[in-house]
Order: sequence, then structure tokens, then C-alpha cells
Amino acid sequence: MKTGVAIVGASGYGSRELMRILLNHPGARIAVATSRSDESPRVAQMHPSLAGRVDLASEPFDADRVASAASVAFLGLPHTASMAVAPALRARGVRVIDLSADYRLKDAAAYADWYGHAQTDPDGLAAAVYGLPELYRSAIPRADLIANPGCYTSTAILALAPLIAGDKVERTGIIVDAYSGISGAGRSPRANLHFPEANENVVAYNVGRHRHTPEIDQVLTEVGGGPASGPVEVIFTPHLAPIDRGIHATIYAVPKGTAVEHDLIELYRSFYAESPFVRIVDHPPGTKDSAFSNYVDITLRVVRGRVVILACLDNLIKGAAGVAVQNFNLMYGHPETTALL
Amino acid sequence: MKTGVAIVGASGYGSRELMRILLNHPGARIAVATSRSDESPRVAQMHPSLAGRVDLASEPFDADRVASAASVAFLGLPHTASMAVAPALRARGVRVIDLSADYRLKDAAAYADWYGHAQTDPDGLAAAVYGLPELYRSAIPRADLIANPGCYTSTAILALAPLIAGDKVERTGIIVDAYSGISGAGRSPRANLHFPEANENVVAYNVGRHRHTPEIDQVLTEVGGGPASGPVEVIFTPHLAPIDRGIHATIYAVPKGTAVEHDLIELYRSFYAESPFVRIVDHPPGTKDSAFSNYVDITLRVVRGRVVILACLDNLIKGAAGVAVQNFNLMYGHPETTALL
Amino acid sequence: MKTGVAIVGASGYGSRELMRILLNHPGARIAVATSRSDESPRVAQMHPSLAGRVDLASEPFDADRVASAASVAFLGLPHTASMAVAPALRARGVRVIDLSADYRLKDAAAYADWYGHAQTDPDGLAAAVYGLPELYRSAIPRADLIANPGCYTSTAILALAPLIAGDKVERTGIIVDAYSGISGAGRSPRANLHFPEANENVVAYNVGRHRHTPEIDQVLTEVGGGPASGPVEVIFTPHLAPIDRGIHATIYAVPKGTAVEHDLIELYRSFYAESPFVRIVDHPPGTKDSAFSNYVDITLRVVRGRVVILACLDNLIKGAAGVAVQNFNLMYGHPETTALL
Amino acid sequence: MKTGVAIVGASGYGSRELMRILLNHPGARIAVATSRSDESPRVAQMHPSLAGRVDLASEPFDADRVASAASVAFLGLPHTASMAVAPALRARGVRVIDLSADYRLKDAAAYADWYGHAQTDPDGLAAAVYGLPELYRSAIPRADLIANPGCYTSTAILALAPLIAGDKVERTGIIVDAYSGISGAGRSPRANLHFPEANENVVAYNVGRHRHTPEIDQVLTEVGGGPASGPVEVIFTPHLAPIDRGIHATIYAVPKGTAVEHDLIELYRSFYAESPFVRIVDHPPGTKDSAFSNYVDITLRVVRGRVVILACLDNLIKGAAGVAVQNFNLMYGHPETTALL
Repeated sequence: MKTGVAIVGASGYGSRELMRILLNHPGARIAVATSRSDESPRVAQMHPSLAGRVDLASEPFDADRVASAASVAFLGLPHTASMAVAPALRARGVRVIDLSADYRLKDAAAYADWYGHAQTDPDGLAAAVYGLPELYRSAIPRADLIANPGCYTSTAILALAPLIAGDKVERTGIIVDAYSGISGAGRSPRANLHFPEANENVVAYNVGRHRHTPEIDQVLTEVGGGPASGPVEVIFTPHLAPIDRGIHATIYAVPKGTAVEHDLIELYRSFYAESPFVRIVDHPPGTKDSAFSNYVDITLRVVRGRVVILACLDNLIKGAAGVAVQNFNLMYGHPETTALL
Repeated sequence: MKTGVAIVGASGYGSRELMRILLNHPGARIAVATSRSDESPRVAQMHPSLAGRVDLASEPFDADRVASAASVAFLGLPHTASMAVAPALRARGVRVIDLSADYRLKDAAAYADWYGHAQTDPDGLAAAVYGLPELYRSAIPRADLIANPGCYTSTAILALAPLIAGDKVERTGIIVDAYSGISGAGRSPRANLHFPEANENVVAYNVGRHRHTPEIDQVLTEVGGGPASGPVEVIFTPHLAPIDRGIHATIYAVPKGTAVEHDLIELYRSFYAESPFVRIVDHPPGTKDSAFSNYVDITLRVVRGRVVILACLDNLIKGAAGVAVQNFNLMYGHPETTALL
Repeated sequence: MKTGVAIVGASGYGSRELMRILLNHPGARIAVATSRSDESPRVAQMHPSLAGRVDLASEPFDADRVASAASVAFLGLPHTASMAVAPALRARGVRVIDLSADYRLKDAAAYADWYGHAQTDPDGLAAAVYGLPELYRSAIPRADLIANPGCYTSTAILALAPLIAGDKVERTGIIVDAYSGISGAGRSPRANLHFPEANENVVAYNVGRHRHTPEIDQVLTEVGGGPASGPVEVIFTPHLAPIDRGIHATIYAVPKGTAVEHDLIELYRSFYAESPFVRIVDHPPGTKDSAFSNYVDITLRVVRGRVVILACLDNLIKGAAGVAVQNFNLMYGHPETTALL
Repeated sequence: MKTGVAIVGASGYGSRELMRILLNHPGARIAVATSRSDESPRVAQMHPSLAGRVDLASEPFDADRVASAASVAFLGLPHTASMAVAPALRARGVRVIDLSADYRLKDAAAYADWYGHAQTDPDGLAAAVYGLPELYRSAIPRADLIANPGCYTSTAILALAPLIAGDKVERTGIIVDAYSGISGAGRSPRANLHFPEANENVVAYNVGRHRHTPEIDQVLTEVGGGPASGPVEVIFTPHLAPIDRGIHATIYAVPKGTAVEHDLIELYRSFYAESPFVRIVDHPPGTKDSAFSNYVDITLRVVRGRVVILACLDNLIKGAAGVAVQNFNLMYGHPETTALL
């Protein structure tokens, strides 16, 4: 018996990846796909790579229609659009996995500050579970609203969690220097993402003011025992690299006491022993190693008394669609890796 | 004494390259740059690579202002926009080098057919000289309106001219299979030029209906002795390749009689003996060999009774800004290679 | 019950893709992997992307060992190396799917001409079935030696087969102008494949003398009714494009009689009605549409009396590892699409 | 009167750029080019982009021959090879601009540690001037041996010098997180630089042990008043990005006292007021802005109490060949920008 799923906002890259994965999922059936386009394009028109795979026309969003066809909805919507539809879906008994940022920040004021809009669904916010299985695996199965994590945030959090949880490093002054493939910026053409601008170019953006900053801080602070133990604060610099997909983060932290490379590597291996998608590797991982997969690759070095952590994942898979399916698997009792290997 | 030049439509890639070249030209001074933007951005804001090189704010276009400052105007405008300003400039004694297609097709009806607009400046059209120095070197010096050739067209024409002029190949059934770097599509973001779409992708477009087709036909027909000798007709397929700049054309023609590779290579060497920017090479040229230069590289092979010509040039330089300066050099009595090596 | 398979020559890109696919195959188990390296590296060391997926060390090739563990061997070896091991495997009852060129050319003299080595296994050559399921679907199930087709060849053959089989075009003078991603050149570093040489470059190579030429000719001649009906001869120009994977072929043929685009498209749809991996599309396909998939995308246009066919596939999947698994599926009674969607 | 120059080791990318620049230099004439190849290939064969520009065959290195033809030699050799030829050249009165690392580290023991070879030319080492004009402009004109700086090092040093010289930041714990285009790794094919490996990949290498580390430390320590004022120590992580050319460095330093963004920007503008190739910009610079130019672009931000400096340059130009010509200009009394704009 396959679970009917809805793809709300089907035209983006994340939704394309989601559909590609779900088409191979033995426990899911894409029942409905919505898009804002008046023309109700077929999914295979929006995504030529899916031609022959899915025979479905997109529809305008309608909560009743979604609820009649699907038990769970993946929201591939821009921020603010998700919280505009999630309440209606939940009211109709549809579980929601939201790939936007709308339910990620527990502090509504922080959301307003960083996103420039009020968080208008406090009930949803209170109910939402942060969908990073490696840290919140036990809470996810019963959740009816998942705040799927950001791509930079998953990279940074998974790369730092063992050190923070183990109280091995200072909580402030952590530097997260990260590079993203350009699909991370979405499918809408923009001047700086125009091929002749982005190609052969490496460039920083939103230095010190990227919206994933408070999300990284929040989760790592929780990992570290909550605000009472001292807030975690990262200095985060995102950059664009001319690749389709992948995030590479190089992270610098000041150890408490003497850091021994081998011991820290073992700490990571132990911390993630039950996490099938975290690979602690010995070599510096390249984004290509985890591209098109749900893996995150992590290693670390100790350099002149700093811990340098290197982490890579595919922003569209482990950073978006893949972890969303990982959450779906946990919610519906499938093995965590179903359709993701 | 430097000639004052105007850059009309300064924000595009062609204009950027033009300014970069002219800044090193001992006989030219960029006197005015225009843009349609209301904010009159500085040139270095529009083109960060020119920071420190040019201290000039763009202005809205004004024919009197241009005429007061400049003797010659380079038009980096979209088609139809050029013929809207060229008459006013010429009326004020400003010579025009137009990088658009507006004055390229001698047959105004063909222009209307292929571009979907009437050619509204018949005087200009009658006066215009096709600015391909390798073929029209003698007419260019006295021209006051230059129709600067298209990028695909220069590649195809230069690759075929010796064979057509020498009556070595059939005039119909010539296949021009060409790949362009994405800067050739201009600076405006579009869905298919968005980095995550264009990167790692090779794709044909406008198959059989690209607007450079009639231009190639027209010039090669002239090269071949005019319509009376039989029109040249090419089957032209343009493609996008994920490179910034460069055109690669692979051209197939049916020889009249037996084609001998070595003889044809010699024919090319002889035909272009006085053309400093045509390099007849022995190896298959790569687009990278001529990138950022005003060279066109050409070689040929005879394969199973077909002549296969391979030609490369930089679409922004030899295919646009470089040849424009080459024309400027001829018009103002500078050595043809000035500022172009 | 899973079939034990051997990967002979596990270090290349084709073998990596093969293993990635087979790891998700419900009817296959990778039992042994061989490499020439003295260090017997683990598969995950040779291919970091497979870390966590496969826990297997490579071994030096030993026919007895392979036969004891596996029923079928995929040979990811260079040409001449395959025919050095295939007889021993077949003698031990191991079925062979050879990804090299060793068994593709039915005419041993042609092999010697194009590859510069004698074909030393005439028995194998006589027994070999050309593994292009779209054309030889009925012969594959009983084959014990599959000559897996070349990547350019599959593209060209699938793009032309309906026209040749239907006698719709002239058999000579067919032009195959094709671009390959650089993984097609294999994993060994070479000067022209060094990133700073290949990146931002488009370049032809082996013009008129690429080894896939006789293979295309041979198969299309068979498709056209055999030599008695007149040999098919293509003029084939391969190029390198700066993408990881994908082949784009633009093919020009002279129709017999008047070509009507719509009719020809329907001919293709009908010809491939039972072929799940051939997508006849309306738009010009990009290599990216079929990248990382086993699909080949084809469309066509009629331009000035020529038929222009556009075809794309992933050289490592449909052009190598994917079609190999497609053959495996047919040989072992699995649905043709198993593990390939 | 043009100065005869020698290009010793002409086959690499740095030498190609050097020749391209020098061919436009009014005060230089390429008199001799050497290569280790037995075939004495012509320069245009080694570098097809220079076809038509330079008509010169390379020769085996011979100090007398170089001295008879040239007043100055640019050494585009690997480390250890430079110090094997520099003494003979200097003994013959040839001034040397060495692009290798052989004369950069003042401490011969540090050279031995980091490069694994003894520094065998102590006289040269004592005489060598570090060729970073922005810092050593006054010493360069009289130098007869220039140690041309490394590419990462120039980026890091120029990005940090105003802060260190002005005692604005702590000298230890400075983080230099840098990405290089792949031409920085040289022209020899290597597995990790093979297009299908390097393309679409972002990866760190030599974490904490890259040889540019001691060079950055040494020069910045000098800038800061010498070891007595406290050594500067950077934590340096180099990465490869899939671009041909360009270095992007994101640098983190802890301010002494309160850092005010605007004041620091002004400090930089003032510090580099006489340096024509340093552009202090307001936006985050992209590597593309300075590609193919001799500029370095720098900006900074203050984020959560850290100073974040962003700097870009072209590793082959400002990071190698361009700065070498800048040094040549200073040595021979040309304006510093000659041939470099």
C-alpha cells in the first residue's frame, strides 16, 4: 500500500529531485503536483529529465484536492508561501514536510528579523519538528509538520555537532566558510546566476548576513545543551562556486584543551554510528563524492591548534529533497535509507 | 590626436570588450558611453572588471551630445534599436559601427522576414558596408556606416570563403554545425541561460531558423560571384556549449571534383595571406586557442569525399568587439592590428 | 536469488557506474571486482562516491576465481585486454558482457585496420551478440558474449535506425557531428584532458578517423538490410565538450523523396514503441536531460530538404554501464528497466 | 631600445602568460626561450594561442647562450630547478626574475623543511628581493635576483598587510581560507586535475601543510615589524575550484579593539594609494572581475567582531606572470603599469 504524496510547488529543483527519488520509492505514490502557473504544465514539461517517468499535470494549489489525494505534502515553496498553506493542509489531516525556512526558527522574532516577514502560524511553529534525522530521529516519526533544514545549515550542523555535543570546542568564534553550487539559489534566472556571470567565477555573498546563520546557531545551541550552556555563534560566509550542486564547508573552531586528530575522528565515528548517511572519511572530501547522493562526507584536521572540519553534501539531496525523503521514511515506518541509496 | 568614440549601449558584453580594447588603443578615446538605465550608472559599476580603467558615467542617449563628443559611435544595441539612432548620428556627421543586425541584410524583405520588423532606414541600408575586413577591406576605410558581422556568420563565412571564391565546392547542401559560448546570447538572464540549466549541457536551438542564416547565405553568395552564379545556401544548426566565449563551427561541403587536403590548405593560406587575424593551422583548433583574441583559427580535412572545415573564434572579440575595432582601424588609418594583439 | 556478477577492470568510470547501478539491482550481487593494481585497493578507495555502499577489495584477475564467484562478468577493460580474458571466462561457463570494442566489429580485418591489433578470438567474435537491445532484443537473452556498443555509436545508430530501416534517407553522405563529455575519454589523465586545457574549450579530434565509424557503418548497414542493399557510410566528426558526461549528436541525412517532419517523428515513435529507454521528444534535447539516466532523447527537423536528427544520451549510462545492465536484464529474465529508472 | 629577455622553461602556463604580456611590451623583446624537451618545439606549438604572435623555437637551456641574447631571464621552472640555473645566469650578468619558490624563504632551514630539499644557493638567497612591488617597491629596481611571490601568498599578504602594518589585528589565529583555479597546479596532467575529476568539484588539499604557509608568515611578520614584534601565523586551507584561473581568499582576523568597517576600508585605500593594481572595492569581488588582469580586488566586512577580508586575483597574472612584468618594469625604469593594463 503506497502512501499518496503531494508535491506542492513542483517546478523548482528541489521538487524535481524529490519526484525523481519518490518515483523509485516502494512506499510512495506521487498523487498530485501543484504549481502556480496558470497553464497547469505537465510535470515532464517543467522537468524534461522526468519525461517518461511521470505522467501528471500540475494543478493550482487547492487544500481540499490535496487532502483528498495525499496523506503527506512536501512543500517546495518560497518562504512565507509555506506558512500560507501549511495550516489548511494540517487542518485536513495532511502531514507536511516543508522545505522552506518558515518553520525552522523557533524564535518568531528571529524569523521576522532575518526574513523580513512575521511568522504567521504560531501553532505550526510550536508543532514543527526540525527535520534533521541525525539529531532529531526520535521526534520525527510522530511529527505532523517537519521543518526540513537548510542546505548550508545541515552541512554546518552535522560537521560541528559532535564537537559541540562533546564540549570539545569554544562556542563562539566558530568560522563557517562555505561554498555552494548554484542550484542552491533556485531556478529563477538572476543577473548573478546568468551563466556568463557565474561560470568561471568564485564569489562571496551575503557576508555575515545569510539567513542560515540563526538556524545554525539555534540548532547547535540546542545540541550544546541549550542557551543556559552558552549560545553557539557562528561567523558564516557563503560563496557561490561554479558547480551545479554541492556544498563544501571548511569550518574552524578553537578546541577546549588539546585537540588530537585521531581522537576527534573517533568521536565523530561514534557520534554518527547509527546514521547511515554520514560518512566520516580520512581524505578531504570533494563535493563530487556526495553529489547525486544523500551522503554527507566529513573529515577533520588539527592545524596550529585549530580544529578544521571539512564537510560536503549535495545541496539538492542531503540538503533538501533527500533529507525530506529520509524524514518521510521515518514518519511512515520505512527503513531510513529507502529510495536513498 | 585621439579620435573621440562613443559607446552607445554600454552595458552589454560586446561593449565591455570594446571598451577594454579601446582603453589600450593609442588612437581612440572613449568620450561618451550611453545606457538606457535611468540611474546613469558608472561604467565600472556595470562592468566591475573595468574598475580603475575607466572613470566615466553612462548617460541616456542623446544624438547631439554624442556628436559633440565623438567622431564615431559603436552601437552595442539590440536589433531595431540601432536603426532608431543611426540616422540621427550620421546626420550629425558621426560615423557608425553598428554591432546589431540592422544593416547586415541587403534585402530589406529578408530582414523583415527573419527579424519580424521592417528595416526602417533604407538610406542607411544602402550606404552600409559589411564590416568583415577579410572580404571588404577596401570598402571599409571610406564607409560611414559599418554593419559589423554576426559571430556565427564571421566564423562560417571565413571558413568557407576560399572554397566558394575558388569554386571548389557545391553551393547548396553546405552544412554549418556550430557551437557558441553562452556570452553570445547576451547579458540578459533567461531561463535556458541560467547557470544550473546551461552548465553541463549541450543543446541545439533555433534549428534551421537562426537569423544568421540569411547573412551567411548573402555574403557567401557575393563571394561566389553573386546570385547569377548560383545562390549559396547553408543548413545551419546553432548549439549552446557551456563555455563563456568561443564559437566552434564544423562545416561540411561537397567538393567539385577531387578534393586534396594539402591543396585546399594552401588555397586558404594564399587567400588569407594579407589577413593578419586568420590563422590557417594544421591541428583541429580549440575555441580556447583564440579565446580573448581577435584571431580566427581554421583547418580542414577531407573525409570520405567531403570537405570538413573546422573554424574557431571568440564570439565577443573576432565575432563582435574585435572586428569592430579592426574596422575602426581601417576607417581611421591605423594599422589593422592596432590594439588587437 | 541474486546472480553473482564480476566487475573485471573495476577502476574506470564505466565500472563505477556499473557498480552504482548494480548495487540497487534486486537480482544482482557484486561478487568480485578485479583491478590491475598490485595493491588490490578497495573499491571505495578507487571510487570515493561508493564509500559506504560496497565493502569489497579488488583482486588481480583470475579466471577460476571469477568463475567460482560469478555467473556473469562485465569487462571494463581497454580494447585487446578484453579478448585476452573473455575466452577463459566463457570456457568456465561465465557469460561475458564486454564494454570494450573487441567483439563489436564482425569483420576481423576491419578491427585490425581501425584498432591496430589482430582480433585474436574468432570463436568469441562469431558468438558475440551486439548488445544494443533496441535492435537486437531477441538475440540477447541467449547470448553468452555481449559486445556492448560504443557511446557515440549507440547515439548515432539509435538516431538513424528508423530512417535507414524505413529506407527514408540516402545511405551515404550521412553526417554525424557529435560532442562528448570528457568522461568518455576514460579516467587516465592526458594532456588534452587536463582541466585547464579541456575546460572552456570545444575542439574536434580524430576527424574522419574515429574508431566508432566502422561500428556505426556496420550496424546501420545491417539495419538497412545488409550490404546487398547498399552499405551505410557516415562521415563522423567527434568533438570534446567541457561537460562530465553526455553525448550530443547532430546528424544530417538526405531524404529519399519529400521529408515531412511530423511523419518522420511518428515513424520514430512507432519504431521505438517497445523501447522503454528511447524518448522521442518535440524539443531539441539537451545532454542534461538524459544525464545520469539510461534514456536516449531524440527529435528531428527538416531543414532545407535535409533531415536533421538531434540525439542525446549519457555516455557512461546508456552509452556504457546502463545498456550493459539492460543487456544483463534481458539475459537473466528481469524486466528490461530493472535498476535503470 | 628593447631589453632582450629570456624565458627559461617556456612550456608552462606562467611562461605562456609572460610571453603574451611581453609581446605587447614596448621595452622588451623575447630573445630566447628554453625548454627541457629534446625536440626544441616552437613556442607556438607548445602554446597554440600564441600562433602568429611569436616565431621562435625553444632551445635547451645554456647559460652562455642566454647571456649572449638576454639581459634578464624569467625562470618558469619548478622549485630546485631555478636555483640550479640562477647562479650561472647571475655570474654572467643576467638579472633573474624567478617564478619558483627557491628564493622566497629567507630561512634556508624553513625551505628545507617545507620543500624537502636544501637551498643550495645561499648567495642568491641573500641577494634576492621578494618581488611584491606593493611592499618592496623601493628595493626592486636595483635587484638582480627577484623572488617572484606565490599566488596564494600574494593574495593573502596584500589582503592582510594594511591590518598587520597598522597593528589592527591579532597576529596569530588568522585564518586564510582560499580557493584556486586549476591552472595554479601547473600544466602536468594529474589524476585529481583530470577534467572529469576536477570539474563540478570543490575540494580542499594540503590542509595546514601547503608550502605557501611559511611564505605568508614570513612576509607578514616583516610587514608587522619583524619577529621582535611577534610572528604572524596563519592557518591556511587551500582548495581547488573548477575554474581555469583566479584565487579567492576569505580571511578572518581578530581585531585589536573595535573594528569599524568604514575606517578599515579607508585604511586600505590609503595604504594602497600608490599601488595601481590594488583595487579596494565595496562589493564582494569575484575571481572573474580580475581574471586576465594584473589587478587584485579587496574588500572587507566586520562580522560578529571578526574582520573578514575578501580578496581575488588571477593566479597566472597578478599571482605570477603579471607581477613578474611589474617587477621587470621597476627594474628597467618603465612605468609600473606598462603592458599590464
